[in-house]
Amino acid sequence: MTKRRMFLNAFSMNCVVHQSPGLWVRADDRMVDYKHLDVWVNLAKLLERGKFDALFLADVVGVYDVFRGSREAAARTATQLPVNDPMLLIPAMAHASEHLGFGFTSGILQYPPYSFARLISTLDFLTKGRIAWNIVTSYLESAGRAYGREGLPDHEERYEMADEYCEAVYKLWEASWADDAVVKDVERGIYANPARILDVTHDGRYYKVKGCHLTEPSPQRTPVLFQAGASPRGRAFAAKHAECAFFLGPTANVVGQYVADMRQLASASGRNPDDILSFAYMKIVTGGTEQEARRKYDDYFAQVNYDSAMALMSGWSGLDFGQLDPDMKIEYVETNAMRTMLYGFAKADPSHEWTVRDVANFAGIGGAGPVLVGSTEQIADQLEDWIDAGLDGFNIAYNITPGSFQDFIDGVVPVLQQRGRVQKDYGEGATLREKLYGPGRSRIARPHPAAEIHAATWSRP
Amino acid sequence: MTKRRMFLNAFSMNCVVHQSPGLWVRADDRMVDYKHLDVWVNLAKLLERGKFDALFLADVVGVYDVFRGSREAAARTATQLPVNDPMLLIPAMAHASEHLGFGFTSGILQYPPYSFARLISTLDFLTKGRIAWNIVTSYLESAGRAYGREGLPDHEERYEMADEYCEAVYKLWEASWADDAVVKDVERGIYANPARILDVTHDGRYYKVKGCHLTEPSPQRTPVLFQAGASPRGRAFAAKHAECAFFLGPTANVVGQYVADMRQLASASGRNPDDILSFAYMKIVTGGTEQEARRKYDDYFAQVNYDSAMALMSGWSGLDFGQLDPDMKIEYVETNAMRTMLYGFAKADPSHEWTVRDVANFAGIGGAGPVLVGSTEQIADQLEDWIDAGLDGFNIAYNITPGSFQDFIDGVVPVLQQRGRVQKDYGEGATLREKLYGPGRSRIARPHPAAEIHAATWSRP
Repeated sequence: MTKRRMFLNAFSMNCVVHQSPGLWVRADDRMVDYKHLDVWVNLAKLLERGKFDALFLADVVGVYDVFRGSREAAARTATQLPVNDPMLLIPAMAHASEHLGFGFTSGILQYPPYSFARLISTLDFLTKGRIAWNIVTSYLESAGRAYGREGLPDHEERYEMADEYCEAVYKLWEASWADDAVVKDVERGIYANPARILDVTHDGRYYKVKGCHLTEPSPQRTPVLFQAGASPRGRAFAAKHAECAFFLGPTANVVGQYVADMRQLASASGRNPDDILSFAYMKIVTGGTEQEARRKYDDYFAQVNYDSAMALMSGWSGLDFGQLDPDMKIEYVETNAMRTMLYGFAKADPSHEWTVRDVANFAGIGGAGPVLVGSTEQIADQLEDWIDAGLDGFNIAYNITPGSFQDFIDGVVPVLQQRGRVQKDYGEGATLREKLYGPGRSRIARPHPAAEIHAATWSRP
Repeated sequence: MTKRRMFLNAFSMNCVVHQSPGLWVRADDRMVDYKHLDVWVNLAKLLERGKFDALFLADVVGVYDVFRGSREAAARTATQLPVNDPMLLIPAMAHASEHLGFGFTSGILQYPPYSFARLISTLDFLTKGRIAWNIVTSYLESAGRAYGREGLPDHEERYEMADEYCEAVYKLWEASWADDAVVKDVERGIYANPARILDVTHDGRYYKVKGCHLTEPSPQRTPVLFQAGASPRGRAFAAKHAECAFFLGPTANVVGQYVADMRQLASASGRNPDDILSFAYMKIVTGGTEQEARRKYDDYFAQVNYDSAMALMSGWSGLDFGQLDPDMKIEYVETNAMRTMLYGFAKADPSHEWTVRDVANFAGIGGAGPVLVGSTEQIADQLEDWIDAGLDGFNIAYNITPGSFQDFIDGVVPVLQQRGRVQKDYGEGATLREKLYGPGRSRIARPHPAAEIHAATWSRP
């Protein structure tokens, strides 16, 4: 039986500290130069050398101001603040690469659907079909205020808004220009057939759009869709919309269960579970030997900034960890998406009871997820275990950039290639969706709602 | 007396047909490849070789559907439809260039102020201070519908909205992070001083923002501000906000008068008239001899697409030229900005009465403005006349890309350099604003409203 290959995304963010609190002060972490395009272009080239499938850029609009009730700690420690726009890094990286995919996060408060649909279509052209969108609904109250609201709409309503936002942009991507609309008839001076360009109408509760899409059909039309919802409502949303679903969990078995649940949800909502690829968040610390990897880990751990970690954890969970006794035991309380994930860790690991301090240490070195530490062979073994538990791939976060990616690419990737788990070459000229699903699959497949909109529009007489 | 140097912007758009209706069918026009980054990266390199100051990217959200009451002609002839996002071209061009500035058009309906302010700040970093924003209020009803309105707000209200939009983004750029907010103290693990990062509050009629800017202070903070308002309200807006004002007019004397009026308006609103640089829209057809240039012009003229030109003209003016007798005489009626400009031509040129057909021919070969035709020396003479009439520079549009720019750069630029009218070298490491105003002027100067916001915020005890 052929082993399933694993998909590899690098996980980063256009800021100084993504999920490695405190480590920006190291001379070998170059994220203090996040404002320079060279840092990103070099990263894209490195990832392409390592045969990564995509670079996935996180984003957040709003600030981590839950810890001690202010953004003081986040600002002091550069914890996702400042945070520059991720989308604007992509064109320069796309021009310097041929195969790497680019996913970026954009929330439903950030851009009106009409503008956002054009941004994506333009990027899909500029990357030659290598673009993905990570759909988020925001979790920071400060984001709501930044966009003129009293705060965020509640959790359920945000997902209703996201459903509607998706519907509006799907229409623009799929239901405005027919596949044969552009004719480029130089002899007759006809670029497009106007009869094959339709107005889109979306008259919803949260969004209204009327007009044709401004962009002709791009290689993928609808971008590859990423989603990371972890609450029940979020999982339902992912089951409906996601092509790549992201999971956070401490062990292969725990995440394997999440994946099994997602596949069931997908089936229940009428989709083919194989159309949803499952990725686990992961940090990896590796070296020539286990000892060398352990030394690196200890070195990183010693530089973790506690306040920075607590700013992240408090922002994600909505709970002010600054008010809690470090020795207090953590109990599982399901309230919102991130809280579920984080407390899920405490619940899932039966080896000991977790305290607030444990969570701080955990988040400090791992960010929102687990850290694998070991020799290149040991890491390869563990990643295979995760894949065998039902995963399709990983979002690999870093402790330092580009060092963590370099270690992985120079050390672990060759081992995984040897084992038939990582691709040795990219397919020629393939779109990102083709890389994930195979040749001829550039467009999103039915019965995904975007594909259904396409089918319903163009099958009409 | 030293001659004043002239500033040169290239004027283009992320689409097949910007202002050269019909010419996309030529084998030597590469705008059919507008979706490929190489076209843009090569253009940026060419312009930098020609010592241009900036590439200025037009944009429109909405379609040209006034002509014959539909977008049929525009879609058929690729007249600014499809039109991809301009901003996303800039990072790739910035990475491939060192000195060229990049201005792009963004309307107040397109992005919420909080998102837009971050996009600009990010671009200002990625270009190392070479970014400019062309502020527009939209003139197509279809743009309003695309953003969930019944149509556009009326002309006066759009400018009120634009005033407020500017105020909101100025606050984010100038009044959130102090110049000394970022300390990057590696020893103490302190990236920024939280006490020097303020929340911005904008609680206006049209826009509401509350929160700190997500981006640390970029090289220019407020981007270089472009504006092209031509109506009385538009001119007043430009006098208040613009650093570079754009004009359309048939002759040096006519535009010289516009410039004089703008300088008066600027003085009246308390600004230094020298802080507003005036650019004229211009097309140039040149060759080794006048005859060669004429032949090129006739060649282009023969390929003009009438419907495409009328789609543009009808969209700009809001008048359906498809309803008018081609032999009807044009009379001057001041209604909106573009109408004023276009009819201004007919009014300003006393040599003959203009008919609808004249306007079509004019727009077909010139787009929204005049065409200079001649040998390199003749063109240089004419451009000097324009500068001597009070202009500071030109927005040079093309008939074909990159050919029109190539002809100008290889033929006219050396002549103008010889005459001390075009820079022979760029200053090292200067921001765009320094290139325009001189060393040390990276930040916008008082009493511009953005600079006043900065001063009022940071002079507080």
